[in-house]
Amino acid sequence: MNVAKKLYLFTIGLILILTLPMQLQASDDPLPSWNDGPSKQAIVAFVSAITEKGGTDFVPPAERIAVFDNDGTLWSEQPAYFQLFFAIDRIKALAPQHPKWKTQQPFKAVLENDIEALAASGEKGLIELVMASHAGMTTDAFEQIVTDWLATARHPRFNLPYNEIVYQPMLELLTYLRANGFKTWITSGGGIEFMRPWVEDVYGIPPEQVIGSSIKTKFELVDGKPALIRMPEINFIDDKAGKPVGINQHIGRRPIAAFGNSDGDLQMLQWTTAGKGKRFGLIVHHTDAEREWAYDRESHIGKLDQALVEAGEKGWTVVDMKKDWKVIYPFQK
Amino acid sequence: MNVAKKLYLFTIGLILILTLPMQLQASDDPLPSWNDGPSKQAIVAFVSAITEKGGTDFVPPAERIAVFDNDGTLWSEQPAYFQLFFAIDRIKALAPQHPKWKTQQPFKAVLENDIEALAASGEKGLIELVMASHAGMTTDAFEQIVTDWLATARHPRFNLPYNEIVYQPMLELLTYLRANGFKTWITSGGGIEFMRPWVEDVYGIPPEQVIGSSIKTKFELVDGKPALIRMPEINFIDDKAGKPVGINQHIGRRPIAAFGNSDGDLQMLQWTTAGKGKRFGLIVHHTDAEREWAYDRESHIGKLDQALVEAGEKGWTVVDMKKDWKVIYPFQK
Repeated sequence: MNVAKKLYLFTIGLILILTLPMQLQASDDPLPSWNDGPSKQAIVAFVSAITEKGGTDFVPPAERIAVFDNDGTLWSEQPAYFQLFFAIDRIKALAPQHPKWKTQQPFKAVLENDIEALAASGEKGLIELVMASHAGMTTDAFEQIVTDWLATARHPRFNLPYNEIVYQPMLELLTYLRANGFKTWITSGGGIEFMRPWVEDVYGIPPEQVIGSSIKTKFELVDGKPALIRMPEINFIDDKAGKPVGINQHIGRRPIAAFGNSDGDLQMLQWTTAGKGKRFGLIVHHTDAEREWAYDRESHIGKLDQALVEAGEKGWTVVDMKKDWKVIYPFQK
Repeated sequence: MNVAKKLYLFTIGLILILTLPMQLQASDDPLPSWNDGPSKQAIVAFVSAITEKGGTDFVPPAERIAVFDNDGTLWSEQPAYFQLFFAIDRIKALAPQHPKWKTQQPFKAVLENDIEALAASGEKGLIELVMASHAGMTTDAFEQIVTDWLATARHPRFNLPYNEIVYQPMLELLTYLRANGFKTWITSGGGIEFMRPWVEDVYGIPPEQVIGSSIKTKFELVDGKPALIRMPEINFIDDKAGKPVGINQHIGRRPIAAFGNSDGDLQMLQWTTAGKGKRFGLIVHHTDAEREWAYDRESHIGKLDQALVEAGEKGWTVVDMKKDWKVIYPFQK
């Protein structure tokens, strides 16, 4: 250890001692936007149990892995997945270079804001939209496209950037878990490269802790300069039974806590909570038609049916958004 | 912050202050197994430059990503890739359940230790061996198989467990980089699940920072219990042009330092060192026929040809194992 480092550590030590009285005055509630109901109590009880040194449920920090779905769990997913708005905006921006799109579905539907025709194009149409809007550029260029879009696009209901339509109570939960030694990961059906440009700023989750769906990329030397080109071919769908597969591929160990909101998260919750020792599963139930949206079994977006049944059977915590959350979004604080 | 945490921080502060004199006596050389030549100097100069606060080359800790090949870079790869020894031992262990293997290539060659016939089976034969030895069980079971193998198998030359045939100077380099805020990653052509069970103990690299080749896995409920089953189908080959793809998939940002030893690492070195700002590329050149092995352009294992040429052109550091390393393995210290 060099002298500079030692001085640094000495200074840190001094600061810790001198600021102790200040720290004693700070608020002790790490989850101020959560009402003091059974959900909050279950979270705090779990974290206390697995961090208690010498306790029977103690989990070493390296194994404190928590996985979070994104759409409907960390940010809203209504009136449609935010990434679909991105794809639509991107198709419109690219349309002048593709005159044929004016007469060709599903592009025609997008350009004419024809939701019915868009829905009629089904999964095949959706994949065509994704490929046309997400492929054909370098990874660096795509990152810039996503960043630019977030800076200018506005959510239709709240008229704010999409990355402000995130749940304040979940932001506090992420911070609380990390303060207790957890590594927090995203495991989303959304695009991995669509999330990475902004989740570090918004959620405090670095790009290497993001798991998501992806298209294939290809390494190439372009004019002697290395580049990764995004190809119009599905690589991995990180949804349903794909989520435990993605978790295993990226993390290589089983999480001890999983947070989701739909049947797309069921297998991730099963996989996480079936491990040895104390485990935690949580489902965000969208029950607040006024402040957010209310939907579950009958919804096309974020359908929650089987996972809600299993939550009851397995003792997973079900957050009642309306009752459990004092505020929904940071801008409402 | 609760009172226990504050007391903890106070105690840490106290310890840092009280142990300062002790720390001042400790050795200051973080790379004691490296001779003081150009390789060591280049490493230290790079780390000093990118960690100097306010310096023109400063890189924030979050972006200090270093990627390491494994075979031939962190551990030896002679007389054959260690994972091939694992596959062979596994085939032999499974042979009683597969009587047909006695007459069926490439299994016959393995059971009869017929290296020529094994080599003649080519890549197709190798893939058959990998599938027969690496697939058809849960991920949990495979982890146990690898762990058991490492505990009992011995390297033919050194008669030691394979995970002791690692390079002492590279262990010091990993520690040195982490002490300077780096996240160290493995990016190997070897199997991701073959490495994860032991690399944390040996290299201090957690499973979530391992990138490697993989076969597909499938999520299933087996008697109502969730399991990930390893399938006999290639998922990803993390070699050559695959390495930057794997890096992008897992890390999502470009490393600033890359360490390899063969042409399989060329694209990873190109991708890493072509980024903006100060970058570092290093190639371990196997030049020590006595203490380790000497091989490069003509070798079937770890062939080093084009990358050596490009190292000269691009100013990558080439480690001369014989000259630069005081000891090769920890057991020689």
